[in-house]
Formats: sequence, structure tokens, C-alpha cells
Amino acid sequence: MARPVTLFTGQWADLPLASLAAKACDWGFDGLELACWGDHFEVDRVLADPSHRVEKLALLERHGLGCWALGGHLVGQAICDRIDRRHQATLPPEVWGDGDPRGVQERAAERMKDTARAAAACGIAQVNGFVGSPIWHLLYSFPPNDFDVIERAYEDVAARLAPILDVFEQEGVRFALEVHPTEIAYDFVTTRKLLDAIGSRESFGINLDPSHFAHQFLDPAAFAIEFADRIQHVHMKDSKKRLDGRRGILGSHLPFGDRDRGWDFVSPGHGDVDFDEFIRALNRIGYDGPLSIEWEDSGMDREWGAPDALAFVRRLDFPASAQAFDQPMKRREP
Amino acid sequence: MARPVTLFTGQWADLPLASLAAKACDWGFDGLELACWGDHFEVDRVLADPSHRVEKLALLERHGLGCWALGGHLVGQAICDRIDRRHQATLPPEVWGDGDPRGVQERAAERMKDTARAAAACGIAQVNGFVGSPIWHLLYSFPPNDFDVIERAYEDVAARLAPILDVFEQEGVRFALEVHPTEIAYDFVTTRKLLDAIGSRESFGINLDPSHFAHQFLDPAAFAIEFADRIQHVHMKDSKKRLDGRRGILGSHLPFGDRDRGWDFVSPGHGDVDFDEFIRALNRIGYDGPLSIEWEDSGMDREWGAPDALAFVRRLDFPASAQAFDQPMKRREP
Amino acid sequence: MARPVTLFTGQWADLPLASLAAKACDWGFDGLELACWGDHFEVDRVLADPSHRVEKLALLERHGLGCWALGGHLVGQAICDRIDRRHQATLPPEVWGDGDPRGVQERAAERMKDTARAAAACGIAQVNGFVGSPIWHLLYSFPPNDFDVIERAYEDVAARLAPILDVFEQEGVRFALEVHPTEIAYDFVTTRKLLDAIGSRESFGINLDPSHFAHQFLDPAAFAIEFADRIQHVHMKDSKKRLDGRRGILGSHLPFGDRDRGWDFVSPGHGDVDFDEFIRALNRIGYDGPLSIEWEDSGMDREWGAPDALAFVRRLDFPASAQAFDQPMKRREP
Amino acid sequence: MARPVTLFTGQWADLPLASLAAKACDWGFDGLELACWGDHFEVDRVLADPSHRVEKLALLERHGLGCWALGGHLVGQAICDRIDRRHQATLPPEVWGDGDPRGVQERAAERMKDTARAAAACGIAQVNGFVGSPIWHLLYSFPPNDFDVIERAYEDVAARLAPILDVFEQEGVRFALEVHPTEIAYDFVTTRKLLDAIGSRESFGINLDPSHFAHQFLDPAAFAIEFADRIQHVHMKDSKKRLDGRRGILGSHLPFGDRDRGWDFVSPGHGDVDFDEFIRALNRIGYDGPLSIEWEDSGMDREWGAPDALAFVRRLDFPASAQAFDQPMKRREP
Amino acid sequence: MARPVTLFTGQWADLPLASLAAKACDWGFDGLELACWGDHFEVDRVLADPSHRVEKLALLERHGLGCWALGGHLVGQAICDRIDRRHQATLPPEVWGDGDPRGVQERAAERMKDTARAAAACGIAQVNGFVGSPIWHLLYSFPPNDFDVIERAYEDVAARLAPILDVFEQEGVRFALEVHPTEIAYDFVTTRKLLDAIGSRESFGINLDPSHFAHQFLDPAAFAIEFADRIQHVHMKDSKKRLDGRRGILGSHLPFGDRDRGWDFVSPGHGDVDFDEFIRALNRIGYDGPLSIEWEDSGMDREWGAPDALAFVRRLDFPASAQAFDQPMKRREP
Amino acid sequence: MARPVTLFTGQWADLPLASLAAKACDWGFDGLELACWGDHFEVDRVLADPSHRVEKLALLERHGLGCWALGGHLVGQAICDRIDRRHQATLPPEVWGDGDPRGVQERAAERMKDTARAAAACGIAQVNGFVGSPIWHLLYSFPPNDFDVIERAYEDVAARLAPILDVFEQEGVRFALEVHPTEIAYDFVTTRKLLDAIGSRESFGINLDPSHFAHQFLDPAAFAIEFADRIQHVHMKDSKKRLDGRRGILGSHLPFGDRDRGWDFVSPGHGDVDFDEFIRALNRIGYDGPLSIEWEDSGMDREWGAPDALAFVRRLDFPASAQAFDQPMKRREP
Repeated sequence: MARPVTLFTGQWADLPLASLAAKACDWGFDGLELACWGDHFEVDRVLADPSHRVEKLALLERHGLGCWALGGHLVGQAICDRIDRRHQATLPPEVWGDGDPRGVQERAAERMKDTARAAAACGIAQVNGFVGSPIWHLLYSFPPNDFDVIERAYEDVAARLAPILDVFEQEGVRFALEVHPTEIAYDFVTTRKLLDAIGSRESFGINLDPSHFAHQFLDPAAFAIEFADRIQHVHMKDSKKRLDGRRGILGSHLPFGDRDRGWDFVSPGHGDVDFDEFIRALNRIGYDGPLSIEWEDSGMDREWGAPDALAFVRRLDFPASAQAFDQPMKRREP
Repeated sequence: MARPVTLFTGQWADLPLASLAAKACDWGFDGLELACWGDHFEVDRVLADPSHRVEKLALLERHGLGCWALGGHLVGQAICDRIDRRHQATLPPEVWGDGDPRGVQERAAERMKDTARAAAACGIAQVNGFVGSPIWHLLYSFPPNDFDVIERAYEDVAARLAPILDVFEQEGVRFALEVHPTEIAYDFVTTRKLLDAIGSRESFGINLDPSHFAHQFLDPAAFAIEFADRIQHVHMKDSKKRLDGRRGILGSHLPFGDRDRGWDFVSPGHGDVDFDEFIRALNRIGYDGPLSIEWEDSGMDREWGAPDALAFVRRLDFPASAQAFDQPMKRREP
Repeated sequence: MARPVTLFTGQWADLPLASLAAKACDWGFDGLELACWGDHFEVDRVLADPSHRVEKLALLERHGLGCWALGGHLVGQAICDRIDRRHQATLPPEVWGDGDPRGVQERAAERMKDTARAAAACGIAQVNGFVGSPIWHLLYSFPPNDFDVIERAYEDVAARLAPILDVFEQEGVRFALEVHPTEIAYDFVTTRKLLDAIGSRESFGINLDPSHFAHQFLDPAAFAIEFADRIQHVHMKDSKKRLDGRRGILGSHLPFGDRDRGWDFVSPGHGDVDFDEFIRALNRIGYDGPLSIEWEDSGMDREWGAPDALAFVRRLDFPASAQAFDQPMKRREP
Repeated sequence: MARPVTLFTGQWADLPLASLAAKACDWGFDGLELACWGDHFEVDRVLADPSHRVEKLALLERHGLGCWALGGHLVGQAICDRIDRRHQATLPPEVWGDGDPRGVQERAAERMKDTARAAAACGIAQVNGFVGSPIWHLLYSFPPNDFDVIERAYEDVAARLAPILDVFEQEGVRFALEVHPTEIAYDFVTTRKLLDAIGSRESFGINLDPSHFAHQFLDPAAFAIEFADRIQHVHMKDSKKRLDGRRGILGSHLPFGDRDRGWDFVSPGHGDVDFDEFIRALNRIGYDGPLSIEWEDSGMDREWGAPDALAFVRRLDFPASAQAFDQPMKRREP
Repeated sequence: MARPVTLFTGQWADLPLASLAAKACDWGFDGLELACWGDHFEVDRVLADPSHRVEKLALLERHGLGCWALGGHLVGQAICDRIDRRHQATLPPEVWGDGDPRGVQERAAERMKDTARAAAACGIAQVNGFVGSPIWHLLYSFPPNDFDVIERAYEDVAARLAPILDVFEQEGVRFALEVHPTEIAYDFVTTRKLLDAIGSRESFGINLDPSHFAHQFLDPAAFAIEFADRIQHVHMKDSKKRLDGRRGILGSHLPFGDRDRGWDFVSPGHGDVDFDEFIRALNRIGYDGPLSIEWEDSGMDREWGAPDALAFVRRLDFPASAQAFDQPMKRREP
Repeated sequence: MARPVTLFTGQWADLPLASLAAKACDWGFDGLELACWGDHFEVDRVLADPSHRVEKLALLERHGLGCWALGGHLVGQAICDRIDRRHQATLPPEVWGDGDPRGVQERAAERMKDTARAAAACGIAQVNGFVGSPIWHLLYSFPPNDFDVIERAYEDVAARLAPILDVFEQEGVRFALEVHPTEIAYDFVTTRKLLDAIGSRESFGINLDPSHFAHQFLDPAAFAIEFADRIQHVHMKDSKKRLDGRRGILGSHLPFGDRDRGWDFVSPGHGDVDFDEFIRALNRIGYDGPLSIEWEDSGMDREWGAPDALAFVRRLDFPASAQAFDQPMKRREP
């Protein structure tokens, strides 16, 4: 039984959901991971208006599309981030409000609780997203960091998430942090620290996107094995390094897609991720949720890319073995 | 004629200069690049007290040590940085003052001007250092950057540096920015942008430290060629990547020397820098200034390391060729 | 003319041949390489019962499946191996008998002769298999080997094979040793030694399986060229190394498929074998026999994998060129 | 809108065009790049006989094949080459004439002018080809080169091409040199020198074939970016290195396809060219001309290879993106 | 304080100790790791004859050589190995006896207990050595292993070692197993299993020789970190892979030094071991025992090699850092 | 017994031999390989004037320098080369004469015979050199080569060398061709062909210079093994590849030392040659002649480089082992 393949809608939010759903249906996707921006999944309307909710779900159903998860990345980012003007561009006006950092963070936290409620109301048991980081700007320790500040940040994030996770647990919904630069957890070490700080809350897990590992020279298959019990959801995205001694791994403060960057996101199968190993790891840990294509490739038309990515993932998604291959060489009762 | 080999004193500022100078003399260094912290080079005392100045220079002379450059990294960092508590630990109290960011930046700028004056007073024509960056926290574009902000930052830094460079030029002293993460210029792309913003001021150049290039997968020899006319000073430091799929290139917010980091600084010759190529590039561009060992290695005793590094650099520093090797095969007048 | 693609049945011997043949037919295989275990090819019944033989061949024919070769690996292994309890599990009870090593070896040799007779009776001209090794346990020379013992082992194996090959030659059937660890011949050096010991017997050749070369860092295409006149049959199997400094190339005495192994067998096209080069080598030496998929992949469901492997091999199997590509640029009679 | 995929006919000139056109049509090509040898595009007949011209074009049209370019490689090579017996085999008898080098070069230059005229007469605006090199034999500087001779050769070639390009410009046809060993321009350095010598003639550009870059360890995608405004036409061909310490990169004076060569041409997708990067570069520079498969693979049957290459190129040719993928995350009016 | 550098005498046992000690003294070694074969350390004579013991220690003292450890590899190997004729060549006649395997194993175990007693009598607190393996011949699982047999082997070895370790603990001597192919523990996985089986006996640890890791593609520095509390002693030896597609990693049953082997032992610094990383790891875990050069290089004269290796190790052995290098940049009381 | 280390004087021919000999003596060389140009070894004067010969040898003796070989590269190159203006610059006027190619070749051949006679007169038994190539310009087969021409060239060269080798054999002197691009033999394949054409003349062998192999991706140690019985003399020179996707392996028709070249010659130990493997190969084949440093490095001052190279070679030149390292573990009479 192959896993469902879904399309994350966040990079298509300039299109009305109705129009995107029609495309996704034509391309053959099994479902959508709805972004909580554009008109794709409007948390406040879903909570306020039961008929809106019914219509939304009917729209998906009409196109034969399931929904296994929501993407609450933009609001989530504001919960623990140091707030600046960039957040204004990505937050709903009522969450941004007057832009006072503490207030923005609090309203973002409340909106994330509402996201859990809205998900539950629609029968969706999974929300993926970001939570930001109070210490991202301390990435490189110069001026020298006070590393107590670093350690306390994990505690601080855990404290801010605790009441949000309470709501998720009440609603029977899970929250998966996408491990990603600019988040408090972006690699093995930082993920371990965050999980230690949060403790064993069953609502909290990881949305594993291998594209964020490849450019850090990290092995996403090994990550899946190491954090097996926390992998709640999986993104299928790829990235490619182009290191020639003049393009740096840190990105040169250039926009994605600039020809002078040392790495970029690319459509799955066009980059450095070893997806064969990645599927083997997912099989090994028994992950049977969706493979959700988050389509980001600055050098490819997205309407060409989405079905190309879908075909790639379908070909790739082989099931695990139930038996050792050398077992049939042995007689039953020696 | 080999280049002078100096020791940058910044990592030894816990020792009084008198004590460090004696060691450097014993080890066989040609001189010191004096850090403007600890008691090594106290800008305000040098300016205020001519006899202090005389004593300082006499101290060096007694140990047979020259001084080709000062290191003004810590104060410089505060000029364009977003100020936080880390700067308090690295700035003189009178520069930190009440810690109000704008004031700190202004006092740091003034102190840098004084550094030029103090250098001139001592007959030292070169100050190396940092200038910080108002956009380091925007390294990874999420939430998505407004790239106009990025572009304007280079203009902003140039504007802040202009009056400082005026003083340098009046004093006949040059300022070399060390290209380095957390600075506005840390790779090929960002250095090009900064130089374009500053324009052709002869006082402004680069302190080239290859250790900052190796972990970014950048080629410091190619950088020397590309920015040949701006290379004012050279640090000899090394770094080593240890990428095994679990240790990331971004550093995991861990202190230098932690075993789980994906890269670290190491004593010259113990890491990834191709120093043979680096010397060839320096020869090609005609750099004849000091090779200044900035000794940083979390896994090696510094008193073992400094003379080891000196011996390494001495062996390495070969002169350029004055003649094509196949010229002697041709007769004079065919 | 593409080569026939067959499925080696050894890893499917838990299924009755009738059931496997139906599957293979559905998947589109051209034929089966029948294993001499399970009910796939029972040497004693074939020899004893002509009607059984007729039925077996009819079964294949009904499914449109050819048979170009038998796989006599398990019995063959016992001919020259040091016998232990593992052989009991893989040998027919009447070959194992009382388990006395010398007797087991002799009965295995007799059974291999019968395999040739049974093959001939069915019109099958090729038997592939193993012969074991009396010196595998001396792989690493500690305690230091007496290398005369090693040299004599090749003579000894040749002597044991000689009467068997006599029967093969009488029957007009060829025997191909699969070059493989645990065999007397497992790489270039050992294959050369074995062939030198056996001399030029036309019945004896090699079953070339590239998966056994990749994890030894050997080039199977170069092997095909070097031993061109001995390549009687080809397996299509793949292996993949996963060396991260903690997983060793020697396998750690772990079962295939364990996550801590440094290499594993995988479905063709999912591993390290350069199959493009491999096909070019087969074209160069004029090999036109079957490409027999021996399907072993501990991380993939075999019923997903077999047709995936078949499709991979079909795409791959391009014919050689009959003409230099730059010939058409020359006029006929200059 | 995908680019047209054409087949270069030069390696099929032993077949009459009528027969090749039928094959190309069956395989699904969009058109042919007609070689000016065999009966594919006979410059003199096209100029002399309008009805021949009409028939030729009708033949293509009947098979639904377009023609975007001619291939004038063989005659072009003689324009600046040092002439030897090899040219006799590849030139029409009337161009070779008595074989006197100067005369051959002049007649080749005239024939190239006629090629422009014939192309124009057929409504074809692009001629690709070679121009040879007077200094190829000086590739390795021993006996030591007089490098003034090298520099003058670029001027000399430019001078010889000038009157030819005059005709091309009169006819509204462009000439694209295929950057290639044995040509005056075969890599970044030599192409830059040639372009500098020729100056800004809009008729003169480059036919970019990545297979000639891979075996030189050159990056064809970077070449496309660097010479973006000169890329007039693109060949799709591949090459593969097989370097094992015994096979050299210089080719050992062996024919293509010999097993002891260190590299060889192979069908697209079977070699070292990173075609994904290559298409991204073509997208970036806005190249929208044909992707012309020049099929050369000494180890593959060409009738198997041509459709395989076509399918590979079709799968590969994705369009560029019109929008940043993170744009939909931002609200319209923040 | 640098570590003592010793020479393991096992490969010099053809020389009388008196002669070897004179050489080692001349070369500048700090001491010898005495092999328990040849006349270097004769366990039975040491126990039987106190005056012999006194003379032996006096001999070392006369040459200024310390002794931190004995090497009991040859007798140890027989404790758990499957006994064959090779053991006869490496065991004392009285341990070999009639060669009956069970008896040989028991006598070897008794001799190892005596080795502890003899060491204690001489004031030597460390014995290094091998213990053999009952399952080495099962390295490659064909015929398919019964993996219960594998698991039980670790228990079996632990049981055989327990009474030996009792004696070691009574005598206050430690036993360090050299992790090595042909031993029960030869990599990360197998060492972990053995340690789990033995449990926390403080007398039992590891003699870490990085040369056995390099050819297995294992990281000896990571091993030192992982098994930090068990590293009792360190060998300095190197190995080099020579993999060209024709020489295999498994060794081809060829003697060390044969030109067709895929790897070989070489003098320290001439191979693949990253000794810089290795010393950093030893520093990190606080290992301060001897660095014992086990000199094995089939391609180098041993009398040239031993002092070359000593010089290499002396240059390499740098002490750890006591302080963070960026600490001196911070003011004491911010 | 270490091999003598000599300096090839060809790149120093602008200095009088008297001056160079003094330097070489100071640096510590054991001898000189005298170039037959400049005033280093003037063949005609040596033959004409016995007192000149006596003086020359006395000069060497005064500086404690031996002479094991002459370098006749420049004249040798003209024997089989296609003659052009470059030869005029490197040949003595009387050999160049009127520059008519056939005459130049013949006079070069005669001069080479005289070189043998002059060597013999001085008691020097070895002449190294080049012989040129009639087919170097056919390196890349376009226009397509007639490969009969290639094959015949080896015969032609052999025929031209035969009478020269007759003289060498009469004089008891050997001639070693330096395998090198622009020579008829420059890699494994072409050397084999040349040796086959020449047949078993004991006077003819190889001067092995590993620097010419590294940039061709060839293994000079494997070459030494393969052509063991022909290695008469060894040069110590190094080369380094600098391939970044923009600098090509073919050299771009740029002078050595240009920054845009893809490879260059460098002082021994500064490049890609694995000299450890190379010495092992020389030890294995029993080569005990000189290691002659041919010093060519466009980026290093030659007076710094020559003693650096000498020190490198002295450190490197270890003797072979006379004994297996595991022999001392075995008792004498088991």
C-alpha cells in the first residue's frame, strides 16, 4: 500500500483554492496539505462559519482530494521569533496588529491554538509548521556568545509552546515542527535539545523535510532513524549544492534562485537528497503518512514541476520487505 | 626575501603584553599584530600619554619584535552591528556606556577614529578589524527577506564608514576589514557589493584570513586574485570540516571546539586550507606584508601551537619565480 | 535484438513454482533461472520421473517462459566448503546424510553431476552455482597464514571439480561459478588463480554478478573484459555501500538488511553498480545470453521490486554499435 | 513551451536523407539539423537548382520535420586548419582540388560563403560549424612555444573569417562555431580570445555542445552563462570519463570507442554532463532555439540510441519559472 | 607533557631483546611494549626465576627504556579461536601440546593468567592482546548464518574470559583487547556487543590501533570518543587503501605486501589514518598512556622506518587546550 | 643505501656550469644530470677536445658531484618531430642548418649518436632524452584520423631510432626516452606500442618522470611496475591540477604558470604525485639509480625550490623491506 502523495499549497497561495484543487486533481495528487494563508485554509472563517467549513471540505471531495494536514508555518514563525518588518508581510493584519513584538508573539500563539481547533473541526489531525527562534541571529558566535543564553532559549521556547500543545492535546491534533534553518531546531543537535526541553508530549513531533538537511551536509535518512518516534509528517523537497570555490554555502544574502548562490531548492529528484535511502528509512521506522510535495524550484515552471515531482514520488515509494531474502534458501525443519 | 611572520595578540589578551612579548621573542616571531584589548594596545592611553607610547614601543623593540598592524576587531564590530548584551562583554566600559544601541555605535565609530590616530602616533600604518553587519540576522531568507533592505545595508555601512575613513586617510593609516561571517562582507558576493558601495577609497581594504573561507567551501586563493588590489593584510589561520551526516555545516549553535560541530578552527596546517595555493596567490598579486598568525584551535594547547604554527609558516613562505623555467632551453638569438 | 530477461527463482523458493511462474508471466519476464531447491527444480525427481520433467517444462511453456539456466548454488557450496551446521539447513536431507564432512562433500559432488544430467534431460545447457571454499576462514592472515596452504587450495578445488566437469562435458552442459565471497574465487586475483588451476576446460566458466564486486570496490565491467571468454551467464543484482565511519565494510557479522551494516544488496539500479558500463562491457565481449535478475533487497517488498527491476533492465539493455560514428563523415573513395 | 528537439544528420550521412527523415519522423523528432555532406544538404546543388531546393524542403515537410540550422563542420574545418590528407577524406573533391593547402583553405572559405547563401535560399537562418585552427599542433608547449605566435593566430583566424561573416550578414544568416578541441576556441580562455579578436559581429556566435566540456573538466552551464549573448545554437551530446590510472585523459591516439581510452562520447544521459544544470543555464539566458541531438556513442546501436536520446531530452526540457516560490507567502499590501 | 612513545617488540622478535633495546635507545624511544614471544618477555621464565626478572628489567633500565605494557597477542588468540595448524607456528610448544583444540584453548587461557601474574611481578600494569574468535569464519553470511549462533558467541567469549579477568583483577593488571579483524570485536558493532556481554569489569578494555579501522572505512577518532572509558592503550600504526577497481578490499588471500592487494599496513603517516583527528580524540578523552608504535610496513626497511615513525609521532603529539580561544576577548566583569 | 639525488641542469642552462655546480654542492646534491645545452655538456667540444672533457669532469669532482646521466632532450626532440620554427630556438645552429625538415631530423640523429660517443668518452653510461613525434598533431581525431597512419608512425620512429641505438650499443651507453606529451610515447598505451615496435633492444629504456602522468590522471607507480624492466632513470618532478570548471585540462594554449591554466608543474611534494607510492614502486622493481630532480615550478623561486626539493627527496627515499613483518611471530621449527 503506497502512501498518499499530497501537494503543500503554500507556494500556490496566489491561486484560489478552487483553481488549485482542479489542477491538483488533474495532475493526480491524492490530496492537499492546506496552507493557512491565501484563501486555502482561513482559520478564523473556519471557526466562525460552519457552512464555510462544509464548503471547503466539499470542494476537496469534489476533486477527489484528501487532506491529512494543515500548514501553519507563517503564523507559527512569529511565536518565538524576534519580530521585525518581515513578519508584517507574512502575518494576517489582525495578528500583526500594531507590530509590538510581545503582542505579535502572543497573538500568533493564540492563532496557533485556533488552528488546532479549526483543524479538529474539519477532522484534520495534523498541523505542520514553524515556531521561529529567539536565537537564530546568534548562529555564528561572534561577538562571542554567552552559551547560557543559548541553553535558556530551548527552555524558553518549550515554555511558550506548552500552553499551545495543551490545546492541541485537548483537540486531539498533533503539531509537527518542520526542522529548518531559522527555527530553534534545524539539525540533529538542536532538535535533540528542543525535544529534551519539551519532554515527552505526544502531541509534539517533527515534519521532516530532507531538503533542509542536504545543504547542511546532514543525512535525513539517519535523522529519520534517530528521531523515529517523533516523525509525524514528511515533506518531499530537494536542494542542490553548487560549490565551485566562489559560491558559498551560507547563501551570500542572495534571494533563492540567484545564480551566485552556493545552493538552492530544486524539484524532488533534481538535487542532492538521496531519496532512495530516505524511503528506506521511512519504511524502516514504519512511517505510513502522506508524502507531501512542497514544491520550490526557482529555475523551473511550477506547473511543469508539480506533476514531474508527483511522478517522481510515485515511482520512488516502494514498500518494505516482510521477509529476509535468504530465508527461502533454508529448509523448514533442518 | 621572506615575509615577516607576526602573532596576532587577540587570543592572548589575558596575558600582559610584557609576558607575551617575551614568549613571542623566544618562539622566534618577527613581530606582533597588537590587539586593541587587554593591555596590548590601549588606544586611549596611547593617545593620552606619550610616555606610555614610548614604553610600549620600547617593550617590543627590546624583544626584537616589529609591529606592522593593529587589530581593532572588537570595537569595530559595534560600528554597524545590531547591538546586544554580547557587545557589553567585548567593549571597553566607556564605549558601551549605557548600552543604548545608537550611542554604542557612535562611540565605537569615534573609538575607531582614535585607533587610527593612535596607530599613526606609533608609526603603525595598518589597522585590521571588523565593522559588524546590520543584516547578519537576515542570513537565511525566512520569513522572506525584503531584498531592498539587503541592498540598502551596503549603502548604510558605507555611509557609516566614510567619516571614519576620512580620519584614516588624514592620518595615513589604512583600514582592512577581515572578511568573516557576521560581517557585512563574508564571501565573494558580499565583498564585491561592499566594495562597490564604498567606492575607490585607498584607505579601505581587506584583511584576508583563509580560515573563514574553507568552511564556506570558498577558495581563498581565488579570492586573493579577484580582490588583489584590496589585500592589505593577511592572517594565517586554518579551519577543518568534520561532516559525517550528523554534524552540520551551520554549527548547531555550539561553542567552538564542541565535538558535535561540523567544522572548527585549527592551527595552520592542521585543516582544510590549501596553503600552498594560498602562498602562490599571494606571490602572484605581489603581497609582501606580514603573515600574521591568528592562533585559534580549541583542541590544542596554545603554547605548543604558536611555535608549531610559526614553523609551518616559515617552511611555507616561498618566493615567486622571476623567470620562466623553460626559458633556459632557448638560445638567445635564434 | 535484446537479451532475454529472466528471474532467478532462488529467493522465491517458499512459493510453489506454479505460483511464481504465474507472477513472472504477469510481470513480463522472458523466462526463469530455476533454483534447484524448493519445488522449482528437483534434480532427483527430474531424473527419476520423465513425466515430472514433461510437466515442469509444460508449466513454463504455458506461461510463455523460457529456461536458459539452472541455479545449483546450495548443493554446489558443499562440494569444497568446510562443512558445518549451516549446510544442513540448505542441503536436501539425503545429501546432508549423517553430516560427516567428507561424506557431505562427496554426496554434494554426486548431486552436482546429477544436476548436469537433469539439465541435459530438460534441454537446459547451463548450470550456475557455487563450489564453496576450503580456505574462506583464512581470509585475513592472522594467525599468519602458511601461503602454501592457500596455493594448494586452488589445486585441491580443481581436483574436486575435474570429475564433475567430466560429466558436464559428457552431457553437453556448462557450469558457471558465481564469483562471490565465500567461494574459492571472489575477485580478480582469486579468479585468475582458479582458472589457472582448472586449465582450459570449456565446460567451466563464470556467472558474473556485479553486486558482489561493488562492495569490494571492484569494477565488474573490467572483470567482464578481462575474463571475457569465460563469461557464460550474467546475474543482474546491485549492492550499495553506506560508509559513514561507523558502519564497516566487513559487515559486522550482522544479517543482511540490518541498519548498522556498511553495505547491503539492493534491487538493480538502486545501488552502486554502474550498469551502463556493465552493459557496454557485455556488448564488447559479445555476451548474448540472459540477463537474470537475482532479486535481493532487504528493504523492499519483492513483489514491488521484481517488476521494477525488470523495467530497469529492459530500459538498460541497449545493443552495441556496428559502425564508427565518424565513418559517415568520410567520403567513400578519397 | 518546450524547445524543438532536432537530430543532427552528420553521423547518418551514409543514409539517404529520405530514409533518415522517415526514421526521424517515426521516432518523433521535431526537425533535422542538416549536415552539408552526404546527400543531406548539398550546397552547390541547392544554389544551382531551385527545384532541388523545393524538393528537399518538401521532403522534410512531408515528414513533419522543421529545419532550424545547417551543419557545415567539415568544410569549415578546412578554413583555418593546417591541411593534411585527413581533409581530403572529408571535403568534396572540388574543394580539395589539388590539395595545395592555401588553395584548399580558400576554396573552403568560398564554400562556406555559399553555405550562407544556400541557407538563406532555403529560409534557414543558422549555420553551425567548425573553422579549424592553425595552432592546434602547439597544444602542449614543447618545444617551448613562441606565445606571440599563439596570440597572432586569433587575429589571423578573425581576419580569415571577416569576409565570410560579411556574406553571412548580407544573407541574414548567423554562423555558430562549435567550441571543440581542434578548433581555435575549445574552452573558456580560448573562446574569450577569439571573441575579442573578432569583435562584436552579430552574425558570429557559438554552437554549445556540452560533451566537449565534460572531458576537459569544464562546466558547460557556467560557459552558457558567461557567453550568454553568443549562444546561438545547442547540441545535446554527452561524454564519459573512465580514468583508472591506466587510461589517460589525452586519448592515447586511439579511435573513439577503444576500450583503453580514458574518455569517450556517449548518448545523452549516459555520461558525465550535468544536463539538469545545463537546462537551468539555458533557461536563465533565455535560449529558446533547438536542442539538437548530435548522436555519437561508439558502444550503442544508433537506431536504439536516437529515440532513447530523444526521450531523455524531452523529459529534461523544463521551462523556467516566472515567479519566486516564496512570493505567495507574502500578503499583497503589507 | 607529551605522552611516552614506545615500540612494540612483536615484529622484532627475531632479534634478542638486548640488541633491540640498544637500537630503541639509540633511536630515542621512551620505552618498549614487550611482546611475549621470542626472548622479549618469557612468561614462564619470569615467573619461575626471579633473577631472570631482575635482569630483564635492568636491561631496559640500562637503556633508559620504560615498559608500560606487555603484548600477549599470540597466546591470547588461541583462547577463543577455532584452532588450526597456524596456531602451532605461533604458540609455545607447551601451549600447543598435542594440538587438540579444546586443550590448546585451555592451556592458552592458563598462560594468559600467568601473563597477568608475570606482569604484576614486574610491576607492569597493562597487558594488551588478542582473544581470537569462534565465529570469524562466519564473516560473510553464506551459507546463511543462524544469527543465534553469532549472538551466543559473544556470551561464550565473555564466559571464557571471566576467569582470566578474575586473575587480572587479583593481580591489579588490566587486559586490553586489540580491536582487529579475526577477533570477536573488530568494529563498532562487534565491540559494543562484546562489551555488553562482558559487562562492567574494570580490568577489561581496548587497545586502540587505528590501522585496523582505516581499511574498514571506520573512523578511529569516533571510536575513541564512543568507547572513551574503555581505551586502555593505543597503538600507532597506519594502513593504506589502493583501490583501482581491480584490487579488492578483502585482500584476495594474498600475503601482506603483495602488489595486488587492495590495502596494506604502512608506517605511521604514510597511509590513510587521519592522525591529527586521532590525537584530538585522545586529548578529548584524556588518554595519557603510551603511544606505542607497532611497526608493520612490507615496503619499507624496518630500521629506516622505526625512527621515521618515532619522529612522526613526536611531531604529532600535541596537548589539549585548557581554555577557549575566544575567552581573552571578553572583559572579566561585564 | 639511499639512492643518489641529482639535479637536472636543463632549467639552469642560463648559468655557467661552474656557477651551478657550486650551488648544487652547497645545497648538498650528490651529482648533476648534465643537459646538453648551454655550456653544461657540449657534445661537439667534448668529442673534439680531450682536455675540455678532463676539465669538465674535474669541475664536477671538485664540487663532489657525480654524473650518472646526460640530458639530450632538445636535440632528440628533432629526430622524429615535424620540424617548425620552435626547433630553431632550441637546436644548436649547426643542427638547425638551413631548417629544411628532413635535414634537421638527420643532423639531430647524427648529433644523438655523437652524444652517445661523448657520454662514453666521459664514462657516463646513460643518456636521457626525447625523440619527438610525427603524429602529435593528430592527438584528437578530428578531422577523423586514418588510424593506419598512427600505427605506421610507431614503426617509422622505431626505424629512425634503430641506427642510433646501434651506436649506443657499440658505445655501451643506454638511451632512456622520457615518456611525455609531444613524444611518440606519453602514456601506457603509446609506450606499449613503441616498445613493441622497437623490440627487445637492451639499450633502449624509459626515463620515468611522474609529473607527466599526474595531469593525465595516470598512475606513475603502476607504470613503473608495468614497464619495470625498462626503467633506466627517474626524474623527480611534480604537477598539480587546478580544475574548477573554468580552467581546462588541455592547457588553453597558455604558457606554464598562467593563472588560467588547469594544471601546472610544481616543485616535488607541492602537487598531485603520490611520491610515497612512487618510491614503493621503485623499491619493488629494484631501481637503484639516481633520483634526478628536474626542477620546474613557475610560481616558486628556483634557488628556494632546489634545496627544498632536495630535502623532500631525501626524506622520501626509504629502502625496501627485506623481510615480512609477521615472520618474527612464527617459531623457527613448528
